[in-house]
Amino acid sequence: MPTDASTALLTDRYELTMLDAALRSGVADRRSVFEVFGRRLPARRRYGVVAGTARVLDAIADFRFGEAELAWIAQTGVVGDETLDYLAAYRFGGDVIGYAEGECFFPGSPVLTLQGTFAECVLLETVILSVLNHDCAVASAASRMTTAAHGRPCLEMGARRTHEWSAVAAARAAVVGGFAGTSVMEAGRSYGIPTIGTAAHSFTLVHDDEEAAFAAQVAALGPGTTLLVDTYDVERGVERAVRAARTAGGELGAVRLDSGDLVAQAFTVRAQLDALGAATTRITVTSDLDEYAIAALGAAPVDSYGVGTKLVTGSGHPTAELVYKLVAREGADGKMVDVAKASASKKSVGGFKTAGRVVEDGVAAEELVVAADSLADAAPVLTAAGARPLQVPLVSAGVIAEEHRGPGALRAAAERHLASRAELPYEGWRLSEGEPAIPTRHVTLT
Amino acid sequence: MPTDASTALLTDRYELTMLDAALRSGVADRRSVFEVFGRRLPARRRYGVVAGTARVLDAIADFRFGEAELAWIAQTGVVGDETLDYLAAYRFGGDVIGYAEGECFFPGSPVLTLQGTFAECVLLETVILSVLNHDCAVASAASRMTTAAHGRPCLEMGARRTHEWSAVAAARAAVVGGFAGTSVMEAGRSYGIPTIGTAAHSFTLVHDDEEAAFAAQVAALGPGTTLLVDTYDVERGVERAVRAARTAGGELGAVRLDSGDLVAQAFTVRAQLDALGAATTRITVTSDLDEYAIAALGAAPVDSYGVGTKLVTGSGHPTAELVYKLVAREGADGKMVDVAKASASKKSVGGFKTAGRVVEDGVAAEELVVAADSLADAAPVLTAAGARPLQVPLVSAGVIAEEHRGPGALRAAAERHLASRAELPYEGWRLSEGEPAIPTRHVTLT
Repeated sequence: MPTDASTALLTDRYELTMLDAALRSGVADRRSVFEVFGRRLPARRRYGVVAGTARVLDAIADFRFGEAELAWIAQTGVVGDETLDYLAAYRFGGDVIGYAEGECFFPGSPVLTLQGTFAECVLLETVILSVLNHDCAVASAASRMTTAAHGRPCLEMGARRTHEWSAVAAARAAVVGGFAGTSVMEAGRSYGIPTIGTAAHSFTLVHDDEEAAFAAQVAALGPGTTLLVDTYDVERGVERAVRAARTAGGELGAVRLDSGDLVAQAFTVRAQLDALGAATTRITVTSDLDEYAIAALGAAPVDSYGVGTKLVTGSGHPTAELVYKLVAREGADGKMVDVAKASASKKSVGGFKTAGRVVEDGVAAEELVVAADSLADAAPVLTAAGARPLQVPLVSAGVIAEEHRGPGALRAAAERHLASRAELPYEGWRLSEGEPAIPTRHVTLT
Repeated sequence: MPTDASTALLTDRYELTMLDAALRSGVADRRSVFEVFGRRLPARRRYGVVAGTARVLDAIADFRFGEAELAWIAQTGVVGDETLDYLAAYRFGGDVIGYAEGECFFPGSPVLTLQGTFAECVLLETVILSVLNHDCAVASAASRMTTAAHGRPCLEMGARRTHEWSAVAAARAAVVGGFAGTSVMEAGRSYGIPTIGTAAHSFTLVHDDEEAAFAAQVAALGPGTTLLVDTYDVERGVERAVRAARTAGGELGAVRLDSGDLVAQAFTVRAQLDALGAATTRITVTSDLDEYAIAALGAAPVDSYGVGTKLVTGSGHPTAELVYKLVAREGADGKMVDVAKASASKKSVGGFKTAGRVVEDGVAAEELVVAADSLADAAPVLTAAGARPLQVPLVSAGVIAEEHRGPGALRAAAERHLASRAELPYEGWRLSEGEPAIPTRHVTLT
């Protein structure tokens, strides 16, 4: 995505009509607190993974109404002139705190909190949720896959199975969840992620035979390349692949298996490679993998996993189910009031919240969420419980904390996720459905 | 998405390495036929819906390597200088035919077929699949929902639950599948889709009470607006909503219900509205709807459906499972050869294919797919079977058929889908899992 594109119209119409009505009724300037949180984890998973924070900050920076956007809104008649003037001058000038990217989260974790006027915060709802719901879903799936892979590299190859720009964001989120590379070039350019991939079946088929195709690929990419060996017959494919590399004076880097029973095939191919003396030639597998298939391949002699569809679609849960709710706002008397919708089925806890993770002997024990007027008011409760504070400043009076979106942010997020996941109790790493890895405890001081 | 953005890096690295190796081995210029098709329909659905054709044509038009793209590729060292020169001059100059947007498709339907050199076709694989797999998935879900809605309007509101640019494409695909409007402003601007939406719970909560919020909204949007009545207590909410509109001198347009048991609530609220004399006030519902929930609301007095998560994520199947395969290519002797991967689990049928739908007494009976060297060769078989030809020219010698991506294309696609779906046998409209609505019959003339 060109970085100079405005994100202002990636917005539900009702954010604009609410702004318009709020400007007329006089509540637009009321100080407000909006919170992003999940009422539950999808599919009774054990934890979620915060991802997309850097993209949220980009989206906030690019959230401005230029001439083209204003002209189009004016033409629709969705809002009046006063609102158009407001939009023309719009820059988010409030504060944002949130879980640092890569951190694990749980039901009720205040993943992101915005403080500002009602008007400036409400406008950002749609794009913030879009980014976080997508990226957290992919990172959460990625983390389960890298857990299942037990240190073997996982590579993202799902671009073709999702929207073309989602693919780029998915590659980034996958890295937050522990992936080592991506197939998609734009993700390499935008985020510095190592790109991978050598050839598809079409490359073999366009040549007159497999020997010619392998020779061509080795000539272009060197013997250290990965040859796809299942276009015709795997056994002959492996034999030809090893020979093609040796003819070029080297040992083959890897073979790729993309169909059939991967567990059985991995053993057969490993034995064949070893018998051919190609002990250093690796095996990579790529056919419809998810965290369960990866786990099932754990005992097979596989060296890396290429994951497509299931990764970029969140392994059955393509959205993180995060919501963006007003939890406190200024009243007519100038004092802040906690608010929450009354619905029994969609429960929210009102008020500004501070969160910490209680860690005992290096193992996470509890997500402590304290409703208090400020981080400072809640700090003693966190300290008393021995909780590590989870929120970091991301935007202060409209100024973005560059360390959370700059070039080092992705690597830091991936490292943070590894540490945060390592801290979970053993139960938290299980792939099966169950309770969150740690319980969330709400404390209200106000 | 800015329309002048290059799509060239929305591409898997292996398309570039295959190009590089093919240029070296001399097969890059071989005439080739690539086909997009699905081996099966997701979740044993009855039919798929072609969507995204106009976006594919946009992506092809914007597939060019400018200075920025070339500089970055050069820096990665993924390809050699000859390939960089090829990319700098790249413009797709081949032919594309495909099912017209909105048409139903089935397993084995040749949804899109590209003819050109291996090099020019292979490069487009990733972005074409990204667009079609996403858009067809959403349109297929949308079509099931509008079938279940039996003519009541369905409105797309899922932007917040998917990637920010997927949301825009999803809104468009939803219209192909019969949706009447979208919440997301950019979809209104980019595709002329009517935008909808009035207010969220936060708007009620930022005011001192519900009366103040309703009065503010009615003042801004008029009494014909839709008021969200479930922030506190639905019964009182409805009463206040009707009063707010009447105080402003009108009758309320609609109430929106966003939580609880929607079926029971719809009856209660309808009775209350009628008792209040607000017989013209409509009821719209919006909480976690999918095609089954919509069907369950069929007997309830509901006037429209707002659908979010399940629509934009394909109702459980966020990708259409379409693949892009080389099915024929020129041999060393200059003659075309049908090709296909030999894998038993990933079966393909080789050769250029012509498709027609056999319709008997107005009811679709069979998808007839004829492998022959050209449309002309296959035409007599289609004619003999009484089959309606399904493929239309989309790109001819690099020139895009503007009627398939211009301003009228979306409306035409929606109308085409209605007609195509209406033609399916009754079984084809069922929401339950089952066999495709019609069988696919392959005939090979070559």
